[in-house]
Amino acid sequence: MYRLPDLKKNTRINAIAVMTSGGDSPGMNPAIRSVTRAALNQGIRVFGINRGYSGLIIGDFTELKSGDVSNIVQRGGTILKSDRCEAFKDPAVRHQAGEILKEHHIGGLIVIGGDGSLTGAHLLTHETGIPVIGLPGTIDNDIYGTEDTIGFDTALNTALEAIDKIRDTAISHERIFLVEVMGRNSGHIASQVGVACGAEMIIVPEIDFKLEALCFSLASQRAEGHGSSGIIVVAEGPRPGLTYRLANQLEAQGEKPGVCILGHIQRGGRPTGHDRVLASCLGAASVTYLLAGFTDVMIGMIDSKITATPLLDIMEKRKPLNPQLVELAQLLHK
Amino acid sequence: MYRLPDLKKNTRINAIAVMTSGGDSPGMNPAIRSVTRAALNQGIRVFGINRGYSGLIIGDFTELKSGDVSNIVQRGGTILKSDRCEAFKDPAVRHQAGEILKEHHIGGLIVIGGDGSLTGAHLLTHETGIPVIGLPGTIDNDIYGTEDTIGFDTALNTALEAIDKIRDTAISHERIFLVEVMGRNSGHIASQVGVACGAEMIIVPEIDFKLEALCFSLASQRAEGHGSSGIIVVAEGPRPGLTYRLANQLEAQGEKPGVCILGHIQRGGRPTGHDRVLASCLGAASVTYLLAGFTDVMIGMIDSKITATPLLDIMEKRKPLNPQLVELAQLLHK
Amino acid sequence: MYRLPDLKKNTRINAIAVMTSGGDSPGMNPAIRSVTRAALNQGIRVFGINRGYSGLIIGDFTELKSGDVSNIVQRGGTILKSDRCEAFKDPAVRHQAGEILKEHHIGGLIVIGGDGSLTGAHLLTHETGIPVIGLPGTIDNDIYGTEDTIGFDTALNTALEAIDKIRDTAISHERIFLVEVMGRNSGHIASQVGVACGAEMIIVPEIDFKLEALCFSLASQRAEGHGSSGIIVVAEGPRPGLTYRLANQLEAQGEKPGVCILGHIQRGGRPTGHDRVLASCLGAASVTYLLAGFTDVMIGMIDSKITATPLLDIMEKRKPLNPQLVELAQLLHK
Amino acid sequence: MYRLPDLKKNTRINAIAVMTSGGDSPGMNPAIRSVTRAALNQGIRVFGINRGYSGLIIGDFTELKSGDVSNIVQRGGTILKSDRCEAFKDPAVRHQAGEILKEHHIGGLIVIGGDGSLTGAHLLTHETGIPVIGLPGTIDNDIYGTEDTIGFDTALNTALEAIDKIRDTAISHERIFLVEVMGRNSGHIASQVGVACGAEMIIVPEIDFKLEALCFSLASQRAEGHGSSGIIVVAEGPRPGLTYRLANQLEAQGEKPGVCILGHIQRGGRPTGHDRVLASCLGAASVTYLLAGFTDVMIGMIDSKITATPLLDIMEKRKPLNPQLVELAQLLHK
Repeated sequence: MYRLPDLKKNTRINAIAVMTSGGDSPGMNPAIRSVTRAALNQGIRVFGINRGYSGLIIGDFTELKSGDVSNIVQRGGTILKSDRCEAFKDPAVRHQAGEILKEHHIGGLIVIGGDGSLTGAHLLTHETGIPVIGLPGTIDNDIYGTEDTIGFDTALNTALEAIDKIRDTAISHERIFLVEVMGRNSGHIASQVGVACGAEMIIVPEIDFKLEALCFSLASQRAEGHGSSGIIVVAEGPRPGLTYRLANQLEAQGEKPGVCILGHIQRGGRPTGHDRVLASCLGAASVTYLLAGFTDVMIGMIDSKITATPLLDIMEKRKPLNPQLVELAQLLHK
Repeated sequence: MYRLPDLKKNTRINAIAVMTSGGDSPGMNPAIRSVTRAALNQGIRVFGINRGYSGLIIGDFTELKSGDVSNIVQRGGTILKSDRCEAFKDPAVRHQAGEILKEHHIGGLIVIGGDGSLTGAHLLTHETGIPVIGLPGTIDNDIYGTEDTIGFDTALNTALEAIDKIRDTAISHERIFLVEVMGRNSGHIASQVGVACGAEMIIVPEIDFKLEALCFSLASQRAEGHGSSGIIVVAEGPRPGLTYRLANQLEAQGEKPGVCILGHIQRGGRPTGHDRVLASCLGAASVTYLLAGFTDVMIGMIDSKITATPLLDIMEKRKPLNPQLVELAQLLHK
Repeated sequence: MYRLPDLKKNTRINAIAVMTSGGDSPGMNPAIRSVTRAALNQGIRVFGINRGYSGLIIGDFTELKSGDVSNIVQRGGTILKSDRCEAFKDPAVRHQAGEILKEHHIGGLIVIGGDGSLTGAHLLTHETGIPVIGLPGTIDNDIYGTEDTIGFDTALNTALEAIDKIRDTAISHERIFLVEVMGRNSGHIASQVGVACGAEMIIVPEIDFKLEALCFSLASQRAEGHGSSGIIVVAEGPRPGLTYRLANQLEAQGEKPGVCILGHIQRGGRPTGHDRVLASCLGAASVTYLLAGFTDVMIGMIDSKITATPLLDIMEKRKPLNPQLVELAQLLHK
Repeated sequence: MYRLPDLKKNTRINAIAVMTSGGDSPGMNPAIRSVTRAALNQGIRVFGINRGYSGLIIGDFTELKSGDVSNIVQRGGTILKSDRCEAFKDPAVRHQAGEILKEHHIGGLIVIGGDGSLTGAHLLTHETGIPVIGLPGTIDNDIYGTEDTIGFDTALNTALEAIDKIRDTAISHERIFLVEVMGRNSGHIASQVGVACGAEMIIVPEIDFKLEALCFSLASQRAEGHGSSGIIVVAEGPRPGLTYRLANQLEAQGEKPGVCILGHIQRGGRPTGHDRVLASCLGAASVTYLLAGFTDVMIGMIDSKITATPLLDIMEKRKPLNPQLVELAQLLHK
């Protein structure tokens, strides 16, 4: 696994810049460390851009030395901070960003973020000609071009630890809990969390859900004497408040579910082993690809191989949810 | 610490019963194990009552042998399950409970729960004459007669781990988060969590809170260049929705706080070392006190000594919050 | 990821047996649960064999109902226990095992274990004709035919949490620590742990190691003013005591390394999300393959697809270590 | 709990110094943060001394501003590093240390460490007249004058998490494990760990141990059909290698115990809630005591009150082990 490409150096780059952008995710710090040390070891200067595109457009750069990325491999969050920058949607602002990068003699930029940030990366390189490479940094795992995004495994385990605790009290009180997990518009987190915690049911945006089926399942369980404790995992989905709406509907059917919105604990925490190794491999690989002349691509892991995928594909294609996971959770619950 | 009393056996008891009642808390299982094995080692039979008072009034008992409490010392929740039993407020129901205990030749009952459960315990022994001893089992730590309740230390650490993760994303995005913790009507959990996580401010029911002071503090921080990330710990308090109301008020003042309601993760999880040792000591001690002829008391830890406090005191007295902890958090935050 | 095969049922099986064998690993319980419920849902009876082949040869079976595998998805260890059975190397004993399975009308056996156990599985099916399917259950991740074994991800994270703690004290005291991890004769655990913890160096059986290079690296670090704290990850390798020998050699060169043998904590603990999902998918798939008429294969995950590999291949082929991970750790350390 | 003293300021101090010394312990960072901010809030300058007494005698000081102690409350280790300084046993060296403190106009010194460090603190203040206050920073909890030392609770929980994992594999393989925990010459860690993990037996320096009793207990367990898995907690004690010697003795009696030396993981890791609150309270209190004119004392927590104890007492008196905990573990194990 993690087979790194064998690419020949092909360009002369003296300095690169690296940023984290959009929602932060655990593993961004190992990625920053890996990009930085891989580049420094090639005699290339490294500039960290603070607060994503917001910092880029005002030239908020900090030169990174080897010591600046010491002891960050185990830390959640991002030492470069992050931001969602509405202004970057303006081509004039992107042009200015390009000018700033040129003033700093930046030969290449590495952007670690979700698809919003990678879209910005694509437009930037397309319009300014400055080589840009993206890395998939988001907990939602909804980025095309990589099996796992940097941060997904940690968020999966954070949600799981929380649900293991909720299950203790659910069993003690013979109670159903609706637990909402993140994922934006996809069920990637929810589906794996649901299988891993032995959920009664998993509710994801990609699959139609019938409340009657859920109530019937709960009633059958009680009838068979299996008690009425259980966990229903709900992906937050596109419209806020879904889990509370479901709870209200269940109460109207005579159930008394508890509700737990896991929220922002899923965004932080020490990155897991998988996220640290993935981030370290992709970070070093991004420098290799940059030096080999690549641009306008995202580096990810597909079928255990490190692969470059055009940013345009990332913008246009969805990573489909594997519905088998949702079915598997239901199969295994009875 | 944990000095157990030296009491002489004074009664002839052949069988006891043990239950967990009210909100479950981590440490109830080590307590059940300790009560059970301490009694079995004295040749006394032990009956576990399932689902608290609800199980008691229908005689839902399970005899516990040594093997039934194997490997539960590290488990959250309660193997006897728990319940909040409104019916027990009715004296006729309590009379029936007493009859059921007598039918089973139960010479003493140990009730592990919060003050609602301990109130029920007092009334039961007072009205039926059956010896009853209480143990403080709740995460809220608002029980008079003990420094720590069984479950408080674990809930403190669960909240802390969650906040450590939230802090990662708060710092990355330079954002304030309001984090709501449990505690019913007290600030015991919030005050220690707030000191331990380096909170900006702690909001508890016992101390008046001025929104203007909070906004001023946040504004000063930004003015001094300390960024605007921080954690404000909010005790849930008596009225639901407090944290959301605070968030709205802050938004009206121009802030953009995130909100995280930790919820029921605080009720579960592997008990910590402190909770397991406390539960084990108090559990064994409760059997010792019962055999020495005590009744209508709760066994707790005060000033490192195991102590019996009359249940009437527990019902009538509050455990005051130490306001110095709230002040200390603010002192240490700047 | 985790794409389950679409196979048609092809055999008439009324009862299956499942066992865990060899060194236990976290994820065995979710696998047992998955096999059991997938089979029960097809109307097939399930017999759990206690203590691996040792239990098989004396017919120590327990029929498993759905409730017997409730609430085990999050538990380390194996509810069926495990054993290393020397006697199974004897063909006469294997013959007897076949007879016992036939007496119980077992139409198929699922063996969860490492390559020793899978070798036994191959011989059993080859000699008795009873269909046998293997699942890769070991923390060592040295099984051909699967990217990850059930238990590897948890062991990786257990080792990492331990090393994160050791690193705190290493930094405080400016000290080097040699940390030994498991892996039998391979460096699979050590290589990923080493990258993930930012190790100074990783020592694995597959790659020659020069002590002088290590001493030189440590001396350079100090000369450059980087202090002398660091972690060296050592795979236990085929000969016991390697890490202590290395420590002695370093002391002879004037270093003062600490030594930590992580040992059996790596074998236990709550399985991670990845291990629970992997175990659940492979467990359900093994039943599907059995019903489709497969035998003498191991079900694993290769390139994100669930795949059947002949047990003979598992016995004869090695899973090569990816040396790039070891080089990456060194690249990223400076 | 944590009742802070009400003392009036009584001295004019413009600058203090703070150090961590001896074996590091989790909670030293919250203590440093608390000392620093409590002093800065009084308009007092704070100098951190790097690497304990070793740094003191060469004047290796760093002035600490508020931002220097941001985000360290949750971190293990010590940002000031630590050391064991043999040279400080020489009165001439201590005299020099006093001169260095005077050159820096240090009006008071706070030493966070174990009893070796506190002994040095006593001699320093006694010989130079510079006010010195000690805080109990060690995982061993063997310091007179405080119920808990800063770091003990975290070490207890670290050992417990490790043993919970070892227990999984002990049960799966029906095996005994001898687990060695730290504690120097005392059984404080071992006794609480043993109760909390449900140990078969606890072996501590303070209580004579009979190997025959252990073998008899193991044999009885097997005879009663309870299997032969279990955990024996061993305090490291004064002579290295105790646990291996015990293992050999058990093997000579026909047992096959596993051995796990937990080692230095017990020294690191995120401090628990209790350690962070204790460290924060004691740190702030030490500044209060210093300003009130106290010297040659250690600030600790006794019976839930913050108390000052003369350093001479700390040097001369032992904190007795509570043998009831060892007996309790045995009582509860059967």
